[in-house]
Amino acid sequence: MSMWAGQFDAAPNELVAEMGSSIHYDKRLYKHDILGSKAHARMLARQHIIPESDATAIVDGLDQVQREIEQGHFEWKPILEDVHMNIEKRLTDIIGAPGARLHSGRSRNDQVATDLRLYLRDEVDFIRQRIVNVQTSLVTLAKDHTSTILPGFTHLQHAQPIVLAHYLLAYSEMFERDLGRIKDWKARMNYLPLGSGALAGTTLPLDREFVAKELGFAGVCTNSLDAVSDRDFAIELVSLCSIVMMHLSRLSEDIIFWMSQETAWVQLGNEFCTGSSLMPQKKNPDMCELTRGKTARVFGDLTTVLTIMKGIPLAYNRDMQEDKEPIFDAIDTVKLVLAVYAPMIATMRVDKERMYQAASDPALMATDLAEWLVEQGVPFRDAHHRVRDLVTYSKTNSISLDRLTLDQIKISVPEANEECLNLWKPEQSVAKRNIVGGTAPEQAIFQIRTKWGHLLEQ
Amino acid sequence: MSMWAGQFDAAPNELVAEMGSSIHYDKRLYKHDILGSKAHARMLARQHIIPESDATAIVDGLDQVQREIEQGHFEWKPILEDVHMNIEKRLTDIIGAPGARLHSGRSRNDQVATDLRLYLRDEVDFIRQRIVNVQTSLVTLAKDHTSTILPGFTHLQHAQPIVLAHYLLAYSEMFERDLGRIKDWKARMNYLPLGSGALAGTTLPLDREFVAKELGFAGVCTNSLDAVSDRDFAIELVSLCSIVMMHLSRLSEDIIFWMSQETAWVQLGNEFCTGSSLMPQKKNPDMCELTRGKTARVFGDLTTVLTIMKGIPLAYNRDMQEDKEPIFDAIDTVKLVLAVYAPMIATMRVDKERMYQAASDPALMATDLAEWLVEQGVPFRDAHHRVRDLVTYSKTNSISLDRLTLDQIKISVPEANEECLNLWKPEQSVAKRNIVGGTAPEQAIFQIRTKWGHLLEQ
Amino acid sequence: MSMWAGQFDAAPNELVAEMGSSIHYDKRLYKHDILGSKAHARMLARQHIIPESDATAIVDGLDQVQREIEQGHFEWKPILEDVHMNIEKRLTDIIGAPGARLHSGRSRNDQVATDLRLYLRDEVDFIRQRIVNVQTSLVTLAKDHTSTILPGFTHLQHAQPIVLAHYLLAYSEMFERDLGRIKDWKARMNYLPLGSGALAGTTLPLDREFVAKELGFAGVCTNSLDAVSDRDFAIELVSLCSIVMMHLSRLSEDIIFWMSQETAWVQLGNEFCTGSSLMPQKKNPDMCELTRGKTARVFGDLTTVLTIMKGIPLAYNRDMQEDKEPIFDAIDTVKLVLAVYAPMIATMRVDKERMYQAASDPALMATDLAEWLVEQGVPFRDAHHRVRDLVTYSKTNSISLDRLTLDQIKISVPEANEECLNLWKPEQSVAKRNIVGGTAPEQAIFQIRTKWGHLLEQ
Amino acid sequence: MSMWAGQFDAAPNELVAEMGSSIHYDKRLYKHDILGSKAHARMLARQHIIPESDATAIVDGLDQVQREIEQGHFEWKPILEDVHMNIEKRLTDIIGAPGARLHSGRSRNDQVATDLRLYLRDEVDFIRQRIVNVQTSLVTLAKDHTSTILPGFTHLQHAQPIVLAHYLLAYSEMFERDLGRIKDWKARMNYLPLGSGALAGTTLPLDREFVAKELGFAGVCTNSLDAVSDRDFAIELVSLCSIVMMHLSRLSEDIIFWMSQETAWVQLGNEFCTGSSLMPQKKNPDMCELTRGKTARVFGDLTTVLTIMKGIPLAYNRDMQEDKEPIFDAIDTVKLVLAVYAPMIATMRVDKERMYQAASDPALMATDLAEWLVEQGVPFRDAHHRVRDLVTYSKTNSISLDRLTLDQIKISVPEANEECLNLWKPEQSVAKRNIVGGTAPEQAIFQIRTKWGHLLEQ
Repeated sequence: MSMWAGQFDAAPNELVAEMGSSIHYDKRLYKHDILGSKAHARMLARQHIIPESDATAIVDGLDQVQREIEQGHFEWKPILEDVHMNIEKRLTDIIGAPGARLHSGRSRNDQVATDLRLYLRDEVDFIRQRIVNVQTSLVTLAKDHTSTILPGFTHLQHAQPIVLAHYLLAYSEMFERDLGRIKDWKARMNYLPLGSGALAGTTLPLDREFVAKELGFAGVCTNSLDAVSDRDFAIELVSLCSIVMMHLSRLSEDIIFWMSQETAWVQLGNEFCTGSSLMPQKKNPDMCELTRGKTARVFGDLTTVLTIMKGIPLAYNRDMQEDKEPIFDAIDTVKLVLAVYAPMIATMRVDKERMYQAASDPALMATDLAEWLVEQGVPFRDAHHRVRDLVTYSKTNSISLDRLTLDQIKISVPEANEECLNLWKPEQSVAKRNIVGGTAPEQAIFQIRTKWGHLLEQ
Repeated sequence: MSMWAGQFDAAPNELVAEMGSSIHYDKRLYKHDILGSKAHARMLARQHIIPESDATAIVDGLDQVQREIEQGHFEWKPILEDVHMNIEKRLTDIIGAPGARLHSGRSRNDQVATDLRLYLRDEVDFIRQRIVNVQTSLVTLAKDHTSTILPGFTHLQHAQPIVLAHYLLAYSEMFERDLGRIKDWKARMNYLPLGSGALAGTTLPLDREFVAKELGFAGVCTNSLDAVSDRDFAIELVSLCSIVMMHLSRLSEDIIFWMSQETAWVQLGNEFCTGSSLMPQKKNPDMCELTRGKTARVFGDLTTVLTIMKGIPLAYNRDMQEDKEPIFDAIDTVKLVLAVYAPMIATMRVDKERMYQAASDPALMATDLAEWLVEQGVPFRDAHHRVRDLVTYSKTNSISLDRLTLDQIKISVPEANEECLNLWKPEQSVAKRNIVGGTAPEQAIFQIRTKWGHLLEQ
Repeated sequence: MSMWAGQFDAAPNELVAEMGSSIHYDKRLYKHDILGSKAHARMLARQHIIPESDATAIVDGLDQVQREIEQGHFEWKPILEDVHMNIEKRLTDIIGAPGARLHSGRSRNDQVATDLRLYLRDEVDFIRQRIVNVQTSLVTLAKDHTSTILPGFTHLQHAQPIVLAHYLLAYSEMFERDLGRIKDWKARMNYLPLGSGALAGTTLPLDREFVAKELGFAGVCTNSLDAVSDRDFAIELVSLCSIVMMHLSRLSEDIIFWMSQETAWVQLGNEFCTGSSLMPQKKNPDMCELTRGKTARVFGDLTTVLTIMKGIPLAYNRDMQEDKEPIFDAIDTVKLVLAVYAPMIATMRVDKERMYQAASDPALMATDLAEWLVEQGVPFRDAHHRVRDLVTYSKTNSISLDRLTLDQIKISVPEANEECLNLWKPEQSVAKRNIVGGTAPEQAIFQIRTKWGHLLEQ
Repeated sequence: MSMWAGQFDAAPNELVAEMGSSIHYDKRLYKHDILGSKAHARMLARQHIIPESDATAIVDGLDQVQREIEQGHFEWKPILEDVHMNIEKRLTDIIGAPGARLHSGRSRNDQVATDLRLYLRDEVDFIRQRIVNVQTSLVTLAKDHTSTILPGFTHLQHAQPIVLAHYLLAYSEMFERDLGRIKDWKARMNYLPLGSGALAGTTLPLDREFVAKELGFAGVCTNSLDAVSDRDFAIELVSLCSIVMMHLSRLSEDIIFWMSQETAWVQLGNEFCTGSSLMPQKKNPDMCELTRGKTARVFGDLTTVLTIMKGIPLAYNRDMQEDKEPIFDAIDTVKLVLAVYAPMIATMRVDKERMYQAASDPALMATDLAEWLVEQGVPFRDAHHRVRDLVTYSKTNSISLDRLTLDQIKISVPEANEECLNLWKPEQSVAKRNIVGGTAPEQAIFQIRTKWGHLLEQ
C-alpha cells in the first residue's frame, strides 16, 4: 500500500489484532470465567445436553487451566482475542473433544456479561472492606480527639471551633453512605445473564436457575436482550466509585492544607510522604495529592462508560469491549487509594496546641454571642447586627473581642451582661453545641459509642 | 478604572451581583423553603426559643408569601441574592419583628441543604411516575406484538429473529432497575440537615427530631459538618438520571433506525415528528434525536457536579452554589423527555410485514441448525464449523439456505436429516427459544402477565 | 390517554413543543441572523434570483424587525420554534410577498451554521478583550511587587522564595497562550457555510463569495456536507474556554489560600467578598470560589458538546440543536468571570510583611546552599545529600539553619566557608535566580518592560 | 495493624510505592529524557559548571543507557519511582562520579515538563502523518466515485441525492482542520521549560537558549513558575485528539449503517471484520464499532486532565503525575485508530447499484422542483407549500412523483410545465448542484484536483 507516506508500525492485520484484542486486560476475568464455565458444564450434563463424563472432563480440565494460570505457566495468546477463547482453546488442547461441547447454548455475549458480574461482585467486596478499614482509622483517631479543638472553616475562612473527632466522623458518615450504595448495587445486579445466548436465548433446554444458584446469584435475568445489552450495573458501579473518590479527594484537600507550613496542624508518617529531587528540606503529602489526581481519573472513566453506552442500539455492539478498561481502572484506583488511606490516617499525628491556638481567635465565637442574645429574647436578625457592630468596633479599635470590657461591649450590645465576658473560649463554644449532630465533645463520644463502636472492637 | 481597554457591560458591583446571585434559578425552591421555615418556626416555639405568637405570625406570614409567589405578585430581588433572603425579607416586611426571629439556630448552609433535599424528594416522585408511564406504553405495545417478528441485531447486523414484545420488554426491565435506583436513593437521602447551623450545630436547644417528623424525613443527619458539606445525594441523583437518559438514548437510536427509509418498520405519530424548512417530503424523528442530544446534556451536568465537589475542603464553600443549575437541568431534562416518551411510544405503528420480511433471511436461523446439531450429540464447536461451511456454500453457490436440498446440506453437515429443512422459518426460530428470558412469544406473554400485568390494569 | 397514572403537566403537543423549541435561547442570535439574511437577500438580487425591489424590501423589513427586537416590541413565539422562523415570519407580516422569497437557496441548516459562526466570532472578541484586561490587572499589580517576596510552593509546601511579580506574570503568560488559541480558532473557523443548503448545495446560482465578503469571512466552506454537519469549531471554542477557566480556577485556588487566616497575605476589596447569614465576623472570597465552581460548569459543557457530536451520522441531526445551550453557557460563563477578575485583581492589597516573614524560614534557602556547593565543584547529588544532612541536623538540634555556626555547618558540609553564612536571606535567594525565566526582581522588571509594557500604557 | 478486618494485599510501603511509582508508564519517555539530559550536560560544560570531561562521560554513558534500554537489557526499578531516576541512577552506576553532576541546575519538575514536550512533539508527527494517510484513502476512493450517487441524509431520513465523493471529501475537510489544530498546537508549545528549576529558576549560570536550540525548540519559557506548573499544552492536545476521534466516530457511524443488511451499500475487507462465537453467518464491522468506543475513551481522558489541573495551586503538585496516563492513552488511541482507518477505507467496496436504487425515490428530488419554481419567479415559501401539497397528493393517491402526469402536478403546482417531468432523476439532481461546495460531480472533480491532488501523487 504504497500510497501512504510514512511507515506503518505494523501490517493492517496486526493493527486490527491490536485494536480487537482484549486479552491484555480481560485475562483478569479468568477465575470467574472458569467458575461460570464449570457451572454451565455441570448444568449441561444435568440437562443431558452433554454427557456426564464430558462435564467431568471439562470441570477437571478447567481446574488444570486455572492452576496453569495461577502458577504462571499459561500462555495468553492475543490471536485468540480474549480470555474466553484463550481458556476454551487451552481446555480443548488438554481434554480434546469434550471441550468442544462447553460452548453449547451460550455465546460470548452472555458469557462476558456473566464473568463481569461475577468479577465485579467480588471486587466490590474488597472495596467494601477497605472503606470499613478507612472508617476504622478515622474513628480510632477520633476516639483520641473528642476534645481536640480546631477551627472549622467555611470558604476556607475560620468559621467556628469544632472538635477534631467531629471532623473525622463526618467522613465516616460519608463513607457509610458509600457502603449503602454498594449494598444496593449488589442487590440490584446479582442476577444471572447466562442462558441469554447472543441476544435471544437458546433453543437448548438449559436450567438457568440451577446455574444461578451455583454461582450465588439471586435469580436469572428475565430478558435476554436486556441481559446481554445493558451495562447499567457497570456505570452505576463506576459512579459510586466516583463518589467514594470525591470523598477521599476532599479529605485529601484538607490534609494537604493542614500539613502546610501555614497550619502545621498534622503530620503524616514519613512513609506516606516524599522529598524533592532538588530541595533538600521538603516533605510532601504525595499520597493525598495523588488521591486528588486519581479522583479525576475515575471521573474520566465514568465519562467513558456513559458515553460508550449512550449511542448504541440493541443488542451487543463491539463498542462495549471498551467498557472493561475504564471499569477495571476505576476499581483498581479506588481499591489502591483506600488501601493507602487506612494505614496513612493511622499515622496522623496531631499538633493539638497549634490547632487550639488557631481556634482561639475570639472572632470565631461571635455566633455564640448572637445566639446568647437570642436566648435573652433578642430577635436573631437584630442579634446578628449587634454582634456585627461589635466585631467592627473590635477591629476598628484593635481590641480583641475577649479583651473588651462589658461597657465597651454594651455600646454595640446593650443587652450584654457578665456572662458575655465568658463566651470567648473555644472549649465552651464547642461544649454548648450539644445538640444531635453538633460539635460538642459529648456528641462525638456518643456517636463513637453508639454508631461506630463496632469498628473499634475489631 | 481607565486602564482597561474596551467597555465593561456593567460596573464591578453589578458583575459581582450577577455572579453571586442565584435567585433566577433557586427561586424554584420557594415552596420547600417555606415548608422548612414553617416547621422550624413551630419547633422554635415548642422549645420556647421564640414566643408562640411569633411562630403563628411567621407561619401565617409565610402562607401569605407563598400566595403572593403563586399568584405572581411577588417581586424577586437579585440584590437579596437567593430564595432564602428574598422570602425572609418579605416575611419581615409583612409581619415585622417576629420575622427577625425565624433564622434563630439555623444558617443558610443547613437551610439550603434542607430545601434541596425536600425539593429533590418531590421531583423524584415525578420522575418515578413518568418512568412508570413509559413502561406502561412499552408493555401496552408489547401486548399487541408478542408474535411480531423482526431481526434482532448485534453490531447492527442481523443476528437472530426476535419478537417485538421481547425488545420492548427489555426496556421495561431497564427502567425497572432505574426505579430501583430511585427508591434506594430516596431511602438514603431522606434525613434532615436542619439544625446543623453553618457547620457545627447550634447552642440553642432545638428539637431536630420534631422538625424531621414534620417534614417527612426518616431521621436527622447525625453530623453537622457532613450535613452541610456533602452533596453526594445530588451527585447520586444526577448519575441515576444519566443512566435513565442512557436507556432512553439507546431506545431512540433504534427507533431512528427503524424509521429510516431503509427499514421503514415503524412510524411515530405525526405530532412527534417534524418536517423541513427546505425539503417538502421530510418526516423526521426529532423527539428521538433530541433525546440523544439531551442525554449528552445530563452527562455534562454530572461532570459538573462531580468536578465542583472534588476539590473543596470542608465545610461549605461557595463553589457549591454552582451545583443547583446542573441538578435542576438534569431533573428538568429527564422529566421532559420521559413525559414525551410515554405518549410517543403509544403512537408507534408497526409494519409487521416489513419486519417479518427482514427477519426471514434464513441466514438468521443458522444458529438454530448449530443448536439442532448439538441436540443430535455433535459438539458445539464442530456444529458451529459445519454450519459456517454451509453458510459459505450457500453464498458461493448463491442458493439461499432454505432452498438447499438435503443432499447439498449434507456436504457440510453430514448429520443433517429432514428436520433440518424446516429450521428456516423465523416463527419457528423464536418459538423454540422458549427458555426463561428467551424470545419465544410464550415467554413474552408470561412476562407481561406475571411481571408487568399491574401496568395494564390501570 | 387514561392508561398513565398521574397527571401530565401538559398535553403531548405542548410537551413536544417544549422539547423542540429553541427560541428561548437561540433568540440571542437575532442580530447575526438578520445580518446574514440581509447579505443573502442582496446577493439573491445581484444574481437575479429575486427582484432588486424585493431585496430592498427585505433589507428594510429586517432593519425594522431588528429595531422591534432591540426596543423590546418583538413578540417571540415558541410555536415558531426558533429565531430563524420568528424573524422570517415577522418579516413577511411586515413586507408581505417579498418576505417569502428570502429563504431561496438556503436551508435552516446552513443558516444556523452561519448565524452561529457570526455570533461566536463576535463573542470571542469580548473574551479576548477581557483576557487582556485581566492581564492588565495582573501586570499592573506585578509592577508594584517586583521586590515583594513570598514563599513559592510545591505540594502546598514551602519550596523556595519567589517575588510576587513573578507569580502574577506566570498567569499573564498562561492567558497569553489562551489568546493565541483564540486567534488560531478564529482564523480556522472564519469560512461561510451559507450556500450549502440542507446538505448538498443548491440548484440556484448563488454567489457565495459575495456573501462571504459581505459578512467578513475569509472564504466559503468548500464542502456543503461538512459545512452543515460539523461543529468542531464550537467544540474547539468550548475547549479553549475550558482552558481559560482552568487557569482562572487555579489562580482562585491560590487567592483563597492567601486570604485564609493562616496566611492573611492578601485582601480583596470588600465589594468582591461577602459575609455570612449566621457568623457576624466572616469575609469570604466568594468570587474566587464561584470561579472554581463555574469552571466545572464549562467542563460539563465541553462533555456535552463532544458527546452530542460523537454519535451522529452525516449530515444534520436534530441532536445538534442541543449544542447551543452549552456553547452559550460556556461563553457567558467565561465572559462573566473574566469581567469580574480584572477589577477584582486591581483591588488586591498585599501584606508584604507577612509574606516576607513566611518566606524567611531559612529552610527555603536549602537549595541555594546545594547550588553554591555545585559552584565550588561538588557534584550536585553529593551537594544535595550534604544539605539534606544539614537540614536534619538543624531540625534535630532545633537550631535554625541561619543560626548554625560555620563549624556546625561543616559537620555536614565540609566545603562550607563564610559565604555560606550569608545564604539565608530570601532577598538574596531571589536575586541570584537572575536567569531568563527565573524569579529575580531584575527578571520580572525586564519581562514587564519588554513583554507586557503595552498593557501598562493604556 | 490488627485493627483492620480483612487482609491487605501488601504492606503500606508497597502500597505507597505502587501509588507513587510512575515507571510503568513514564518509561516511554526514556529517549526524550536522554536527549534532554545530553543537551543539558553539554550546556553545563560550556558554561563551566561541570568539567568538559564529565559532560563527555555523561553523554557517552547516556548513549549506553539508551542502547541497554533499546536492546532490552535495562532493568526498570519501581523503587526508583520514575524514568528520570532510573536513568540517572544507571548512568551513575556506569560512569561514577560525573553522573552525580548531571542534575545541576535542574529539577524533576522542569525535566519532566521538557521530556513531555519533546515526546508529544514527536508523537504528534505520527498523528499528523496518519491523518494524511486517512485523507489519502478517502480521496483515492473519492476519485473513483465522483458519479456514484447515494441518498444524503438528515435525521437519518433520505434528504437529497449526493455523490459519494462529496461525502468522502467532507471528511477530508474535517481532517484538514484537525491538521490545522495540530500545527497551531505545535507552534504554541514549542518552548523549553528546562532551566526553570523546581519552580523559581536556578542560581547557576545556565545557557537556556543553547539548550533550546539543541533540542529544536523555538525559544525558552520565559516564566519558570508557568513552565513547571501548567499543562495547558497537554490539555489542548487531548482536546484536539478528542475532535479527531469525534470525526472518526461519526464516519464509523455511517459505515456501520451502510454495512447493515438494510442498506448493504458497502463492504469492508474481511480482515477488518469479525465473525461470531455463536452465529455462523455474521460479518461485523468491529473496527468501526471499536472506534466509536475508543472515542468515548479519549473523551474520558480529556475529562481527567482538565479535572486534575483545575483544582491545584501553583506550582508543581503531585496530582500532575496523573496527567501522563490519560495523555498517553489519548495519543495511543488516536494513533491506533488512524493506522487502522487508512488501510480499512482502502478496502471499501461500494455497491453503486444499491446506492443508486435508494437515491432514486423521486421524493428526494422534491426540493429540486421547489427551486425550479423559484427560478420561475415563485417565492420560495409558496413554492415549498405547493411541493408539499404535491408530495401529499402523491402519497394519498399512491402514485410516485415521477409517475404523475403534468395535469396531476398542476393541481398542486399550477406553474408546472414539461420540464418538471424531468426533475426526478438523481443524476440530474446532483449535476444541478454545481455551486462551490455543492454535490455536483463537477465540483467533486474540481476539489480533488485543486485541493487534494497532492495526496494522490504520492
